[in-house]
Amino acid sequence: MRLLDLLLGRKLANYEGEERKIGAFEGVPALGLDGLASSAYGPEAALVILGAAGAAGIGRIGPIMIAILVLLGMLFLSYWQTIAAYPTNGGSYTVARENLGACAGLVAATALMIDYVLNVAVGISAGVGALTSALPALHPYTLQLCLGILALITLVNLRGTLEAGLLFSVPTYLFIASFGALLLYGLANALTSGGHPAPVVAPPQMPAASEAVTLWLLLRAFASGCTAMTGVEAVSNGVGAFRAPSATHAHRTLAGIVLVLTALLAAIAYLATAYSVAPMDQSEPGYQSVLSQLAAAVVGRGSLYFIAIGSLLAVLCLSANTSFAGFPRLCRQVAQDGYLPRGFALPGRRLVYSIGILWLAVTAGGLLTAFGGITDRLIPLFAVGAFLSFTLSQAGMAVHWKRQLHEQEGGRNGNCGRLAINAAGGVATAISLAVILAAKFVEGAWITVLTIPCVLALLLLIKRYYAQIDHQLIEEGPIAVEDLRPPIVVVPIADWNRLAERAIRYAWRLSPDIVAVHMTRVEGPDSEEHAGLLRRRWRNDVEQPARAVGLSPPRLVQIPSPYRSITGPLLNFILETRRQAPRRAVAVVIPALVQAHWWDRLLHTGRVRRIRATLLRHGGPDLAVVTVPWTLAEPRPEAVIAEEEPRHQRPAQQREREVEAAK
Amino acid sequence: MRLLDLLLGRKLANYEGEERKIGAFEGVPALGLDGLASSAYGPEAALVILGAAGAAGIGRIGPIMIAILVLLGMLFLSYWQTIAAYPTNGGSYTVARENLGACAGLVAATALMIDYVLNVAVGISAGVGALTSALPALHPYTLQLCLGILALITLVNLRGTLEAGLLFSVPTYLFIASFGALLLYGLANALTSGGHPAPVVAPPQMPAASEAVTLWLLLRAFASGCTAMTGVEAVSNGVGAFRAPSATHAHRTLAGIVLVLTALLAAIAYLATAYSVAPMDQSEPGYQSVLSQLAAAVVGRGSLYFIAIGSLLAVLCLSANTSFAGFPRLCRQVAQDGYLPRGFALPGRRLVYSIGILWLAVTAGGLLTAFGGITDRLIPLFAVGAFLSFTLSQAGMAVHWKRQLHEQEGGRNGNCGRLAINAAGGVATAISLAVILAAKFVEGAWITVLTIPCVLALLLLIKRYYAQIDHQLIEEGPIAVEDLRPPIVVVPIADWNRLAERAIRYAWRLSPDIVAVHMTRVEGPDSEEHAGLLRRRWRNDVEQPARAVGLSPPRLVQIPSPYRSITGPLLNFILETRRQAPRRAVAVVIPALVQAHWWDRLLHTGRVRRIRATLLRHGGPDLAVVTVPWTLAEPRPEAVIAEEEPRHQRPAQQREREVEAAK
Repeated sequence: MRLLDLLLGRKLANYEGEERKIGAFEGVPALGLDGLASSAYGPEAALVILGAAGAAGIGRIGPIMIAILVLLGMLFLSYWQTIAAYPTNGGSYTVARENLGACAGLVAATALMIDYVLNVAVGISAGVGALTSALPALHPYTLQLCLGILALITLVNLRGTLEAGLLFSVPTYLFIASFGALLLYGLANALTSGGHPAPVVAPPQMPAASEAVTLWLLLRAFASGCTAMTGVEAVSNGVGAFRAPSATHAHRTLAGIVLVLTALLAAIAYLATAYSVAPMDQSEPGYQSVLSQLAAAVVGRGSLYFIAIGSLLAVLCLSANTSFAGFPRLCRQVAQDGYLPRGFALPGRRLVYSIGILWLAVTAGGLLTAFGGITDRLIPLFAVGAFLSFTLSQAGMAVHWKRQLHEQEGGRNGNCGRLAINAAGGVATAISLAVILAAKFVEGAWITVLTIPCVLALLLLIKRYYAQIDHQLIEEGPIAVEDLRPPIVVVPIADWNRLAERAIRYAWRLSPDIVAVHMTRVEGPDSEEHAGLLRRRWRNDVEQPARAVGLSPPRLVQIPSPYRSITGPLLNFILETRRQAPRRAVAVVIPALVQAHWWDRLLHTGRVRRIRATLLRHGGPDLAVVTVPWTLAEPRPEAVIAEEEPRHQRPAQQREREVEAAK
Repeated sequence: MRLLDLLLGRKLANYEGEERKIGAFEGVPALGLDGLASSAYGPEAALVILGAAGAAGIGRIGPIMIAILVLLGMLFLSYWQTIAAYPTNGGSYTVARENLGACAGLVAATALMIDYVLNVAVGISAGVGALTSALPALHPYTLQLCLGILALITLVNLRGTLEAGLLFSVPTYLFIASFGALLLYGLANALTSGGHPAPVVAPPQMPAASEAVTLWLLLRAFASGCTAMTGVEAVSNGVGAFRAPSATHAHRTLAGIVLVLTALLAAIAYLATAYSVAPMDQSEPGYQSVLSQLAAAVVGRGSLYFIAIGSLLAVLCLSANTSFAGFPRLCRQVAQDGYLPRGFALPGRRLVYSIGILWLAVTAGGLLTAFGGITDRLIPLFAVGAFLSFTLSQAGMAVHWKRQLHEQEGGRNGNCGRLAINAAGGVATAISLAVILAAKFVEGAWITVLTIPCVLALLLLIKRYYAQIDHQLIEEGPIAVEDLRPPIVVVPIADWNRLAERAIRYAWRLSPDIVAVHMTRVEGPDSEEHAGLLRRRWRNDVEQPARAVGLSPPRLVQIPSPYRSITGPLLNFILETRRQAPRRAVAVVIPALVQAHWWDRLLHTGRVRRIRATLLRHGGPDLAVVTVPWTLAEPRPEAVIAEEEPRHQRPAQQREREVEAAK
């Protein structure tokens, strides 16, 4: 446990939850890295498509970026409204479920989950890809680097969202500052030179046109550019991570992320045309990304260039962190509604949903390993989920405002405006989704389209499973108080020793009707038997002392077990007992050596565990299994309590406050 | 379980044990394959050493083979006597332990165990090596072939020694018959041609001499040739596998094996000189083994040649089978004495010691995998163990006869003769052991010398472990009958439902003192609480109905758990309870959903298992855990009983006989 303390930090109490929550400063690195990193690949993705039409195509980046920024603005407004309307949790799942029904909510949740997992794999592998193209010596270690970064992000997030936000704030703010300075300098140059600044390092030649500028080309460029928007929904999914007033902190974080992202995207698009930067083919040697060309053109390959590109690489690698903040919180909500195993809803030692974090790490690690750390083929699968959940969230909000309008709550005009914003946002994201699907369906978006119903079916099956159990267990009336005679106690014993003595003594405490059962021949045909000896000892050491003090002496039954099984004859004996006394409960008292070390497991046969499991599974409802322990090492309850509840670290008044609150 | 039935055959009852035992016919393939296969490599190993001295060296194979055969004869006589003296089990372990003390017995057992494991790895890889040199196309699949044959032998032996003997009898007797015919024909040729028969296919040239014929060379040749004797001890270790009268059947088997082996060795040595067969370098292309050259020289490469060489390959591959008969029986004896985990002493569904078989398969498989199926380097480690156990066994028998002589049992002369035989055998094997150690120490025998004390230490540690437990558990006097008041029952509940109702009802059956414990806040800081609702339901649905019929109403205690732990506060509560009532026992009644399918495990948190384990380990001796089950699927006790005890396959009179015998 010391190792866990070291790796994850000490166990946190519930009342420390509020202190663990984040503000806008930690919120941007914790929830915004994905969004900010998008600026590195969104414009480039659009430019690559446009590049097919040569300089004429690349000249169209302006209108396309304006369309993307308008869409981003609509998303910003509508998520702002969502956070205000759902200040405890405004994720697409909640919004869609509450306004469009459970099924729409689950579709949104599924789409988001898939997107979060893909984001981890794609984000890390893209970051490592950029890193290894900068430092080719690292190329053979691509997969190891990917898994190492994944492990780092997982570990930091298991320590808590606060830690992740603080630790990753250095590269985040360094990235914002350095690129901000660089782009501002570039803009100043462009303005002073009348829109045609001289590059310090000249970008390569424009590619020759191989296609005409068609509407289809522009739509595809828009669809590719839309990847710049993924990650914007993370804040609304993670409202639960912010300290009170959570809506205010979430609003600030969202505003910060969108503002920086908008500025970056606009500046990049403008400067790319001003400096005549053209996308290069990534599979050719000497490839330079658009941002790298741009930075070199503005300031040359000096120290600012290396700081900016270095922090960009770090932000790309760490962009997976957004998923680690969003995915576990989403899973927790879905699990609370019964659509995921309950473990996803339980906070771990650091008050984060550890099972969700681990599950995300395992799935993404599996994807990375399966693709050897090169996940280019996964990128087309990527934006579908995000835009599907955008659309459902907007539609849900539109229905929400419409309902408010009917109920005449809030100002009529205000609600009308809000409805208009969300409706427009919904239509815009729906159109974008259609464009993305059409443009990327064959390239891989069909995989997402196929995966969503599969995950959905799984969630519904899990829900049905829990619903059945809940239905079985629901208790309406008062407790039944008849048929409460003591049980018939059956004690399987292997030999007469202190273990058996302790079990028989415990049985006497529970009931006057006790039968000890001894299976003979369980050691096989060639073994010596001590059945007669046991019978003699039973008479002398059990029956006589019992009679002497007027206790009812337990019977000893010896049953030959030709097939060397204990469970078989024992179950048979219990069925027989029940046939003779149908309304009596049965308690099987099992004397058990309790294992204290790992080697104990190797040196014992695990019989007790198997017998107990079979009896519980097949013994019927009126049978209980009483395990009477014999521990092989001294019990240390205080150590367990201290480990589970590190109370000494807690001020006394807080403890009292808690006891009060529970009353 | 259907799959297990298909793979391993139906479960066998104890009374079928006698029918499952083997006679001499199955004994030779079951226990003699290692011994017989030795004829393939023993003479060749000696010839390889002698070949360094050229034709002059190879001419000395006669005297060396005579020395080996004399030693074999002595081993035969002394093992014959051992089987007669220890008709239930005459393995080196038993003989050494009973006559030389426990430590000597364990050394013998350790040496044998190591030898058995090595024999499996070396036997299979040597066989596969011979096979792939005959069919080079198979060479890339060496390791797969090795593991496949290992799996086959393991499976057949898990089905039972009888099956192994029957299945492997075909190649065994085919080998004996074909080589018998071939060698007889060669002998007839040699005799009719005055000792210089004309070869059908001429063997290659004699190698040139690179060394002189020295005593050291002859000793090394003898030491290498001694590998021809490994496997002879297997019969005495496996006496338990024979049907009554076991000594007679074991004698016949031993005689059969040694007779065939002697004939083969003598004929091979004689014919090798007569036909001028010389050993070839195994690492050169076109390598032919001595037996292959010999067979080709006698009958040419016709059908008899291929039958003989084919059956030899099969016998080599299957020679590992001897270990599978001997190792589990040896482990069983050692485990019965407490030096190995008890599972090794339990017969499996087919009345063989399955754990020993599986352990042998796993260790040998590990060795094969580690060495990629090429275990040449293990061969020098090999004969040390066998000769160490030979020596200890002979020495033990000598002490045995000496004691008999003192006690004047049996005829004085007879015992004198027996003593002489075993003493001579012991001296001879001790000298051989010294020679083997000296000749092979650097090549690898030191590994065996180092491994033996490590295994020995492990066995002694295991014994000490069991002795401590036995000492703890031993019960001398009558059972204590005071302090038998009903326990205080603690029922941890999560909610008021049928599961909790069933647990409280069961608690009422056991004791009037019941406390229900409900931990609040275990779901984390952001969860909704239903503590108040539970208190209301408790008053209405539990306390009121109980009072109405005069039952003592169970108390409900709600404890806040700020660290979300259930075990910590529960243990704390139990410690508190015990402080207030120090002499009362405590029973914790745990309501448990019982899992019926594999997916149940994924959908539940496994909390019950963890709580039970911690309470049993740290709750102290007067605490018992009562598990009250709620099964998620219908119980099927009859199915379990039918699977554990397939009684329908058993005639009625046998069943009665068993019940009689148990009385």
